[in-house]
Amino acid sequence: MGIDAVRDRPGHADRWPRPGDSGALLERFRRVRADSLRLAATLSPEDQCVQSMPDASPIKWHLAHTTWFFEALVLQPHLAGYRCFDPRFAHLFNSYYESLGSRHARDRRGLLTRPSHADVLSYRACVDGAVQALAAGGEAAGRFEALLELGLHHEQQHQELMLTDIKHAFYANPLRPAVQPGLAAPVMEPAPLTWLTAQGGVRQIGHHGTDFAFDNETPRHAVLLRPFALASRLVSNRDFLQFIDDGGYRRHEMWLSDGWAAVQAQGWQAPLYWERSEPGIGERGWRVFTLQGMQALNPGEPVSHLSFYEACAYASWAGARLPTEFEWEAAAQSWSGSEPILGAAWQWTRSSYDPYPGFEAWSGPIGEYNGKFMVGQQVLRGGSCATPPGHLRITYRNFFPPGARWQFAGLRLARDA
Amino acid sequence: MGIDAVRDRPGHADRWPRPGDSGALLERFRRVRADSLRLAATLSPEDQCVQSMPDASPIKWHLAHTTWFFEALVLQPHLAGYRCFDPRFAHLFNSYYESLGSRHARDRRGLLTRPSHADVLSYRACVDGAVQALAAGGEAAGRFEALLELGLHHEQQHQELMLTDIKHAFYANPLRPAVQPGLAAPVMEPAPLTWLTAQGGVRQIGHHGTDFAFDNETPRHAVLLRPFALASRLVSNRDFLQFIDDGGYRRHEMWLSDGWAAVQAQGWQAPLYWERSEPGIGERGWRVFTLQGMQALNPGEPVSHLSFYEACAYASWAGARLPTEFEWEAAAQSWSGSEPILGAAWQWTRSSYDPYPGFEAWSGPIGEYNGKFMVGQQVLRGGSCATPPGHLRITYRNFFPPGARWQFAGLRLARDA
Amino acid sequence: MGIDAVRDRPGHADRWPRPGDSGALLERFRRVRADSLRLAATLSPEDQCVQSMPDASPIKWHLAHTTWFFEALVLQPHLAGYRCFDPRFAHLFNSYYESLGSRHARDRRGLLTRPSHADVLSYRACVDGAVQALAAGGEAAGRFEALLELGLHHEQQHQELMLTDIKHAFYANPLRPAVQPGLAAPVMEPAPLTWLTAQGGVRQIGHHGTDFAFDNETPRHAVLLRPFALASRLVSNRDFLQFIDDGGYRRHEMWLSDGWAAVQAQGWQAPLYWERSEPGIGERGWRVFTLQGMQALNPGEPVSHLSFYEACAYASWAGARLPTEFEWEAAAQSWSGSEPILGAAWQWTRSSYDPYPGFEAWSGPIGEYNGKFMVGQQVLRGGSCATPPGHLRITYRNFFPPGARWQFAGLRLARDA
Amino acid sequence: MGIDAVRDRPGHADRWPRPGDSGALLERFRRVRADSLRLAATLSPEDQCVQSMPDASPIKWHLAHTTWFFEALVLQPHLAGYRCFDPRFAHLFNSYYESLGSRHARDRRGLLTRPSHADVLSYRACVDGAVQALAAGGEAAGRFEALLELGLHHEQQHQELMLTDIKHAFYANPLRPAVQPGLAAPVMEPAPLTWLTAQGGVRQIGHHGTDFAFDNETPRHAVLLRPFALASRLVSNRDFLQFIDDGGYRRHEMWLSDGWAAVQAQGWQAPLYWERSEPGIGERGWRVFTLQGMQALNPGEPVSHLSFYEACAYASWAGARLPTEFEWEAAAQSWSGSEPILGAAWQWTRSSYDPYPGFEAWSGPIGEYNGKFMVGQQVLRGGSCATPPGHLRITYRNFFPPGARWQFAGLRLARDA
Repeated sequence: MGIDAVRDRPGHADRWPRPGDSGALLERFRRVRADSLRLAATLSPEDQCVQSMPDASPIKWHLAHTTWFFEALVLQPHLAGYRCFDPRFAHLFNSYYESLGSRHARDRRGLLTRPSHADVLSYRACVDGAVQALAAGGEAAGRFEALLELGLHHEQQHQELMLTDIKHAFYANPLRPAVQPGLAAPVMEPAPLTWLTAQGGVRQIGHHGTDFAFDNETPRHAVLLRPFALASRLVSNRDFLQFIDDGGYRRHEMWLSDGWAAVQAQGWQAPLYWERSEPGIGERGWRVFTLQGMQALNPGEPVSHLSFYEACAYASWAGARLPTEFEWEAAAQSWSGSEPILGAAWQWTRSSYDPYPGFEAWSGPIGEYNGKFMVGQQVLRGGSCATPPGHLRITYRNFFPPGARWQFAGLRLARDA
Repeated sequence: MGIDAVRDRPGHADRWPRPGDSGALLERFRRVRADSLRLAATLSPEDQCVQSMPDASPIKWHLAHTTWFFEALVLQPHLAGYRCFDPRFAHLFNSYYESLGSRHARDRRGLLTRPSHADVLSYRACVDGAVQALAAGGEAAGRFEALLELGLHHEQQHQELMLTDIKHAFYANPLRPAVQPGLAAPVMEPAPLTWLTAQGGVRQIGHHGTDFAFDNETPRHAVLLRPFALASRLVSNRDFLQFIDDGGYRRHEMWLSDGWAAVQAQGWQAPLYWERSEPGIGERGWRVFTLQGMQALNPGEPVSHLSFYEACAYASWAGARLPTEFEWEAAAQSWSGSEPILGAAWQWTRSSYDPYPGFEAWSGPIGEYNGKFMVGQQVLRGGSCATPPGHLRITYRNFFPPGARWQFAGLRLARDA
Repeated sequence: MGIDAVRDRPGHADRWPRPGDSGALLERFRRVRADSLRLAATLSPEDQCVQSMPDASPIKWHLAHTTWFFEALVLQPHLAGYRCFDPRFAHLFNSYYESLGSRHARDRRGLLTRPSHADVLSYRACVDGAVQALAAGGEAAGRFEALLELGLHHEQQHQELMLTDIKHAFYANPLRPAVQPGLAAPVMEPAPLTWLTAQGGVRQIGHHGTDFAFDNETPRHAVLLRPFALASRLVSNRDFLQFIDDGGYRRHEMWLSDGWAAVQAQGWQAPLYWERSEPGIGERGWRVFTLQGMQALNPGEPVSHLSFYEACAYASWAGARLPTEFEWEAAAQSWSGSEPILGAAWQWTRSSYDPYPGFEAWSGPIGEYNGKFMVGQQVLRGGSCATPPGHLRITYRNFFPPGARWQFAGLRLARDA
Repeated sequence: MGIDAVRDRPGHADRWPRPGDSGALLERFRRVRADSLRLAATLSPEDQCVQSMPDASPIKWHLAHTTWFFEALVLQPHLAGYRCFDPRFAHLFNSYYESLGSRHARDRRGLLTRPSHADVLSYRACVDGAVQALAAGGEAAGRFEALLELGLHHEQQHQELMLTDIKHAFYANPLRPAVQPGLAAPVMEPAPLTWLTAQGGVRQIGHHGTDFAFDNETPRHAVLLRPFALASRLVSNRDFLQFIDDGGYRRHEMWLSDGWAAVQAQGWQAPLYWERSEPGIGERGWRVFTLQGMQALNPGEPVSHLSFYEACAYASWAGARLPTEFEWEAAAQSWSGSEPILGAAWQWTRSSYDPYPGFEAWSGPIGEYNGKFMVGQQVLRGGSCATPPGHLRITYRNFFPPGARWQFAGLRLARDA
């Protein structure tokens, strides 16, 4: 048998997202779309145009890209006779969909002073209207609901990125403006840390049921785990200060080789956004740039804005390790309802972002959503304060390259039981 | 005698700019300051915030920097008790004055969404008021008028940069917006080209008289010239098309070595902003990005947006050469009044930007204005359509690195007589 | 409980390599050391000094580094009064052991014309003598045998790198010299491809027994596999030509995102070392740089010098996938003795190079051998024609970054059963 | 008149080098060729193969390139039926002659382990034989002598580069070997520094007479100079130490803008090859890497291995300036015979490397020798200890980019009279 014969086996069935709860879909559409605008409300058109690094995007671009997503995947295929708001926008606001045509260079999104902020708001209003008219008309067929649902989850993901990206941009400004002016959180002490043990054995991992999930959370499959223990809370700022004070950023023996190279090449001495000032301000003189501007380090808050390398180094220093994403999910199954598993900060896991056994990407352009990124990244679990409420679930797999620090990412310790 | 003895010779007298016509200084101050705002009038705050490359600056930054220049050099030294509008602005808007403190990184000026556009307008108004109050009070002493005069010429230089920089930024936008929407210039045919000959001999070069001039135009000094001829007009777009059509960008023998390397590394095939479209549009299918957006190539206009390398290659192809800056200035002395020497486009000369014999930079911080850039650059003469009227004179020495293409720069041919 | 309490748990026992068969250790030492010299025998001192890229090292450096490894880890700790051959060599020939002191920059190894080739041969002879004297004396205590065994496996790994690195260097020379002049392999047709199926279930993965293994092959642990099928042979050059001819390098839909970026940034159009010449030479005009110089493409040989990205793209095009390292090892357990699992070419797997559950690195400096590289790399299995005989086993985990192409790396297809 | 008419003017006469003293040409050929081999005599084949940076070339490459120069420009055009030693060598050993075909990448010359050192010696012997046979036969016509003469001067230039390049390569080796092992020069005290004044007026600059000169030294032409003074000797190491001790590398006000940027980007704190060790060794603890290895700083020697930027900064600190190349040459005319103008170290001048008025490059391929580099470089005058005796003259124009430090380049102070 030659390779041609290999390639001739029957194709797979189409795979599409499942709408989670299609009844309230329109209502949720309106709410999610409004949430994006509310996030941007304190920002001027100038603020919304800036891009501080290639990995981050301007707020205006996020607002337009999420709109283009609905236009390209919901309206164009399902609304007969739909005419694009502006046919040039596909080039400007396509992120990475090779199958949907050409794209403006990612690192040049900040140059798009036009379309103006006002134009983008019009674009949003126009697409919102068309989507609602299509839905209300009841004539939308086929994948309409599935793709609309996907568009909402997509927009919620970008809502978190809006916060991480504008935070990064404002930190690049010596004036250090606040993204969300207001009072900082009250000073907290870290809770005591205990170990929660989990039995080993075969556990089911991945999404099941009829709710919406991304393709990368499937198929649900069995994994064999050894007994392990997970810390009852995330590593706190005060914990991490001990690591710094113990020479954590100067001692190679805790670090992965790539991590140690990053420490030296980039001069890391603390998490991103930490700055040392006079003693007496904040926890031992450390201040941190937050969405509320520069603030004293809050000792009880989960440490955040770590790279995977720093998370690993900390765990090694602490005589522990990071959990795998399977351990994390298995633990979350037991604790859900009783433990603060979701929402404190994204938690780096020791798992590379690989496909689950039997993984198949969605069909068509949305097949590019997750699958093509499955190399060179680490899985994060849990969600952060910047993740929109209701967007999370314990099977959710976030992923970033190991050196990324501008996300709200910390860690939870694990160890063999 | 050792090096200590060498260093002990008496110091030079202080050197300062001379106010050109101090009578009308305040009136000119108001006019020049208003001109800057008028240039920005068609641009949104977003447009004014963007930076498309490290060599270019945002419009807002230009507006603030020119204001800081008055604040730091006119108000702070001469207005007793002056309090800075915002003490943090010195860091943000100092361009390159090492002696005036720290600076925000040049390639990150586009990140300054704050201060807002409105804040910068307030800054301008406030400084304008203080300058005028100081001048009206009649108590300004010392170098006040000299530095005010310098500040006006400085701002006029930035007015030209505002146009070149926003043009570059808008070209980076696939929508290709117009900086100055309106009608393009009427199609022109090139004028016939004739040669104007000049005698050799000793000629006086450099500025004299009591009008304002930059320190780099002095001292006036004698140079010995050989007879030469200068073309009666600049090289036109149609002329340059012949060079392109004759393989100008593919034949190494016309190019300086660094120029040929730039052609290959950057894929140059035409001047910056030229694009080939369907035949029948523009001169043989060429269109050009102008301040009025994309336009058909106008054959009679001077070719512009050339690097020095391209200017040299063209001259070589044409069997001619570039004039030296001394030939140019000597010719301009004879022709002034009768020939269009100023204002069509900056003209690359074959002269490196070296100090004149006996050159001394101005005293104090403004000594950094010109002198410290005297290496690695070529002199341009003549001024362009973007140069503010009244800003030019035939002794004026503009300078840019040989690979710069975003200025309105072309060439005039010369040859030995 | 705070983080201090977390860190106070009892330490682990020391972990060291196990000598495989200590009886014949000295004999194997002599043979392996001689093999390295034999590999270099056709190369001049000039050839042995050159470094063609940062990832590759000069042959002379390999010869010296493997010697330093014995000196630093075997002689210095175990031979009382041992004096280093040259105390400066530790800096020159330490590869990446942070705990063993400073190192010459990796990308500047090719600058080491001194010590000369002759000096390095003396270094080898001297260290070889000391090791043998120490062993023969019978007084070597403690870890002596364990570290000597490790040194042999280490040197064998470098023997393969000597071939991949000099091949890369010679390809950078327009003269394209042969590393091993001689006859090329006879033209082969690909064998038929069949699918060998494997049951799912719990399988034991990782090394056990008393033979030598690297720490990254342990601990042996259970994994749960789904039924799968593995191709009976590796993908051949002719197979891969079909992928190329079908537009494989021009169609984004088969590629991981990082892979597609590499294709475009680096202009990949075929595996490394492939060149298209006139039709009629080689398989449809393709020639390949081999250890015997440029040769006609041999259709039946396993395709080699692929990146992980190309391996993935091919598998996707073929309607299949890469096996995980666990599937590979489980299959190899069944087939060993009957199937050509080892030695044809390294086989990229779909597994990131992550630590096995319960993994602990060796103690002391050799703990840096494997563990600190466990991020950003993919596992390869199987070994190649350049791997020394006897060096391989089915639990062996090779690893390289996904873009690496200078290794003898191809792929074997897998699919769900 | 259009541009076509401009281009139609009559061409120039051919221009070629003039043989200096054709009588002894063959004898000089033998001597110069032997000198190159003698320079390489202490170096192993490994040493002769290495390239430490793109600007430097391997010794073996120099030996082969200078040979190719004779082959391509002397033998191929003038020896009927000449067959190239190896037709592939043109690609390997062409430096920058676009008109002579393709070239191996400049920064990859160090990868050429083949042809071997022995092959290159054979190449030299073969070409030497053919050149001598051609000359002895008396049948060589046309430009033969002119090009042979040029080839000798060309080879002498490369003899100096052989020393600068291998010095740079050996410095990159932590073992710091000596290029020319032997005794260092005896410790010298700087001579007293006096000022030698020169009258202003019209002076003739450039080469005349029948001796060989490069095209860039012509045409001889008149320049108008102002009175000036030149220091009686070069700046010494001790002089330069005073600059360092006075904060010369930390005070921006002495530096050109590009120079200050280089200081900061590259961390310059002293001339290239200077290293500070314990006080008591060398002049205040400074040691310097020389052709004899690391040596104590010799206070009376001319400071060397400066960039143009450092030379300018020193002159500014000393209250003086660099001479123009015209001042230098005019002074040298007066002093020749009585003053040590030539040979101590190359002397940076304040003159950009521009064409002389009326400059025309040589005809044919050798027109690429000098003219195409006339931008972005500074002129150096005078020659160094590494310049072959007899190669220099006071009209000689050496040139390097302003940041180059690996040449034997220092400075002589000048000032207005």
